[in-house]
Amino acid sequence: MSMSYSNTRPRVTLSEATTLPQRYYSDHEWFECEMEAILFDMWLCAGRTNQIPNAGDYFVRKIANASVIIVRDEQGVVRAFHNVCRHRGTLLCKETEGKFAGRVQCPYHAWTYRLDGTLANAPHMEKVEGFREADYPLNGVAAEVWDGHIFINLSPHPIAFREHLAGLDRKFRPWGMEELEMVERRVYQVKANWKLVIQNYSECLHCPIVHPLLQKFSHYMSGDNEPPQPSYLGGRMDLRDGVKTLTMDGTTQRCSLPGLSSDDQRHVYYYCILPNFLLNLHPDYMLTFTLWPRAVDQTEIVCEWHFHPDEIRRTGFDAKDAVEFWDITNKQDWELSEMAQQGISSKGYQPGPYSNREELLVALDKFVLERVKRPND
Amino acid sequence: MSMSYSNTRPRVTLSEATTLPQRYYSDHEWFECEMEAILFDMWLCAGRTNQIPNAGDYFVRKIANASVIIVRDEQGVVRAFHNVCRHRGTLLCKETEGKFAGRVQCPYHAWTYRLDGTLANAPHMEKVEGFREADYPLNGVAAEVWDGHIFINLSPHPIAFREHLAGLDRKFRPWGMEELEMVERRVYQVKANWKLVIQNYSECLHCPIVHPLLQKFSHYMSGDNEPPQPSYLGGRMDLRDGVKTLTMDGTTQRCSLPGLSSDDQRHVYYYCILPNFLLNLHPDYMLTFTLWPRAVDQTEIVCEWHFHPDEIRRTGFDAKDAVEFWDITNKQDWELSEMAQQGISSKGYQPGPYSNREELLVALDKFVLERVKRPND
Amino acid sequence: MSMSYSNTRPRVTLSEATTLPQRYYSDHEWFECEMEAILFDMWLCAGRTNQIPNAGDYFVRKIANASVIIVRDEQGVVRAFHNVCRHRGTLLCKETEGKFAGRVQCPYHAWTYRLDGTLANAPHMEKVEGFREADYPLNGVAAEVWDGHIFINLSPHPIAFREHLAGLDRKFRPWGMEELEMVERRVYQVKANWKLVIQNYSECLHCPIVHPLLQKFSHYMSGDNEPPQPSYLGGRMDLRDGVKTLTMDGTTQRCSLPGLSSDDQRHVYYYCILPNFLLNLHPDYMLTFTLWPRAVDQTEIVCEWHFHPDEIRRTGFDAKDAVEFWDITNKQDWELSEMAQQGISSKGYQPGPYSNREELLVALDKFVLERVKRPND
Repeated sequence: MSMSYSNTRPRVTLSEATTLPQRYYSDHEWFECEMEAILFDMWLCAGRTNQIPNAGDYFVRKIANASVIIVRDEQGVVRAFHNVCRHRGTLLCKETEGKFAGRVQCPYHAWTYRLDGTLANAPHMEKVEGFREADYPLNGVAAEVWDGHIFINLSPHPIAFREHLAGLDRKFRPWGMEELEMVERRVYQVKANWKLVIQNYSECLHCPIVHPLLQKFSHYMSGDNEPPQPSYLGGRMDLRDGVKTLTMDGTTQRCSLPGLSSDDQRHVYYYCILPNFLLNLHPDYMLTFTLWPRAVDQTEIVCEWHFHPDEIRRTGFDAKDAVEFWDITNKQDWELSEMAQQGISSKGYQPGPYSNREELLVALDKFVLERVKRPND
Repeated sequence: MSMSYSNTRPRVTLSEATTLPQRYYSDHEWFECEMEAILFDMWLCAGRTNQIPNAGDYFVRKIANASVIIVRDEQGVVRAFHNVCRHRGTLLCKETEGKFAGRVQCPYHAWTYRLDGTLANAPHMEKVEGFREADYPLNGVAAEVWDGHIFINLSPHPIAFREHLAGLDRKFRPWGMEELEMVERRVYQVKANWKLVIQNYSECLHCPIVHPLLQKFSHYMSGDNEPPQPSYLGGRMDLRDGVKTLTMDGTTQRCSLPGLSSDDQRHVYYYCILPNFLLNLHPDYMLTFTLWPRAVDQTEIVCEWHFHPDEIRRTGFDAKDAVEFWDITNKQDWELSEMAQQGISSKGYQPGPYSNREELLVALDKFVLERVKRPND
Repeated sequence: MSMSYSNTRPRVTLSEATTLPQRYYSDHEWFECEMEAILFDMWLCAGRTNQIPNAGDYFVRKIANASVIIVRDEQGVVRAFHNVCRHRGTLLCKETEGKFAGRVQCPYHAWTYRLDGTLANAPHMEKVEGFREADYPLNGVAAEVWDGHIFINLSPHPIAFREHLAGLDRKFRPWGMEELEMVERRVYQVKANWKLVIQNYSECLHCPIVHPLLQKFSHYMSGDNEPPQPSYLGGRMDLRDGVKTLTMDGTTQRCSLPGLSSDDQRHVYYYCILPNFLLNLHPDYMLTFTLWPRAVDQTEIVCEWHFHPDEIRRTGFDAKDAVEFWDITNKQDWELSEMAQQGISSKGYQPGPYSNREELLVALDKFVLERVKRPND
């Protein structure tokens, strides 16, 4: 069974579509500007609500030099705070996840905060003129939830989360993502700029060369992208005839997710919700990537596989076929991203031409340049 | 047996007593300024005279990018020199301690110096017009001794050492420190700014939370501090009734040091002699810390336990009870100092309020700001 | 058998011959300037033609942040290219050596280049207005060969290679270096500035102190240097009577190289061809060093032993006597170079006087200062 695809996307002009100069991928100061203008100003996917099912459950995320606690409070609301005591600045939590017993207590001098961030107790401050506990809550970070995904925003004036989602909540409603449960997590340390990871994610021209297994189950020229959006870049690809999902052999014993149309069951959706969330939706499972830039040339990537609870509880459930497929594919991608980082950082690099099928990369470059160059709000 | 303490120190005003902004603990350039204005301009405790009992005995200290040889000369005088040959700048000693056989010889081209630093021999310089051996002694570093402690000063114009001691020599005369001998050394690499180590040392509000064993033997509200001095910050705490000294069980077989009054036997003295020397005086032993800043966020700490020779020679002498007590306590302190460094360096930090019992920390901050901001001499 | 040598080189004046200030050996920005003005502007020895005997054979060199492929093309010509794809800048080769099967293909999107660097195929670029394959060859690097040594030059306008050789090709013709074959390679990571490695190479005053074995076979005051040249610094030393070459015991079963005069058989030649090539010519073998500055205080040194093929094929051939001799001597030199780096980088350093027998070091300093300070071409 074979099908023929052709390059039907609009033509581009060479002068309008070339890669960025070297410094955008290798200059530490530019990277700091990106962190300010992008990572500290936009909604970031931090994790999943079912990581913190009960009051006091928390996990910690490092975002550039910020450390943020994401916690469920007594009312069940997901909240986020800077992981820094208001007394002498001590880090409150060293662990990356855990459970607070009703209060967050600083391990140094026992300043104690409620789960809503307010200061409950500050010992030995009675002789400080002008000190009021009400003035020293934990510094807050905006937090929102979308279908089980927790988003945080470190800006003092975040844009409305709904505006950021830009209709993706309606689009992906059928997948019922809030019901899915994480079965596997892999954390990758990639020696590449975060933008190169998104670039790699945003085109499949490399797939026949780099990912023979993926190419076997889903033709690299199949499907199509949405026009680039201000807050996301995405598209879908077809599963080849006879292929049920992306696993080591293209088959699965798992049922499709309950809400999916027969058309949705024939595709895999790939969406980059800028700047740090990559969302892969398969007929029977969800794969999420959150990107954590660590340096201009280093990115930590947290990759998680999520399945429907009915399947997880079924006798004989095994996620290995999907985990292994993507772990192999991921490592192929990270290796190429690292080689791109090395080449772009070297003296011989000069900007090169994008093809007309790399239009999402052009959009990513524009997004970054507009964000970083814009006047400070 | 219990005793009640109350917070009787003077009130402070919020606006006059807040921690310093982030950059003082995380900025590399500020750190370099501190090294110039403080470490390269003040008397530093380098070690003990009984490390180098005989002529030619030496040890080497690294102070920021300086390397200094401390050596006993032929006349028995303790001297200090930069560890750098005057010919082509080669490091003279790679070892951190040892014994020179009468001369210091450069391992590269055999330029040879006497133990007083003068150049004794410079081979093959006979055809250099204007070369005189007398012009090329080792570059000297000021050195002084106080009751067995060796102090060095890298300034070309050090203030008088006696002025720096500011009467501490009279105050601590009864302990007869020059007689004490080192029994144990522990070297700690702490990922915290050197000022955070002194801050941690200069208040005991954290003791009941962090140091249950110390709190058991010495109440954190007991004793009192001296008013802050230009060159030192210190105070003393009471041993609880029935406690003889600070050891794992609060008791000891060792006698008190011979010169101590009965009052001094009931206290532990904690003195920070700025900028790098912490001196703990117990009834029966001396604990010394020298701090060696390695980077804005890293400090090497050399901790040594010193006892009276009569006790050391007594059958059954064992320092373990004191060593273990402080090794445990030190590690608790370093962990909190590292968490302070991490929190203060993170985006969520903002200066916070000191309590009125953290007055020595306010004094430390003032000391640093005055030193670094003052016009160059 | 003994011979007396005296210091007959011209007198120098103290004020004209002192070592350079600290920053030339420890400042990162100065180092970057040196890389631009020297490493990226001069002919560098990259390796040997017999590393790549056949079409498609290649090896890769890192020069500061440049990565260069040296390859033999279909016509047998040695060529050099930046190791960077013209599409999105991906590094083409991760391996440090290997064989291309007729084409160089980028592992990311399969852009494919001929061995002469021209672009043969760029998939999916048909809808890019203005794109022409002829405009996207690999970025070239100049390459030349001298008696089996491959030199490369990253400047867009390199000076003529013959001018750089400045007659050394005639001088060293008798050694027939193109015939020699590499038998052993040792790669050393030295924590010293590249100039300190050349300094160490350019005088033998340290030999009696540092290299007792070398001193046993070749007196440090023997032989003489050529006057310093713009592109090289060199000289020769005598083998002592009864010594046949530099090996562990000063003897060898190997014949002298076929073209050597009886006078050349009594000397070892030491030439530093600036800025990265050290060439030691012994009666019976050639030792080469190529220097690869990695940071202001780090240099990678590739050292290779090359012998005549007739000797290599002789029964009982063993290079160990020569390899061991120089491996020991090298390690002695690197240790001193590292101690020089440490001392010069430390606070106590100040420029010191050169002797009249360190005239090549004075010349090296002048060479560097003139190169880096000169107006940009």
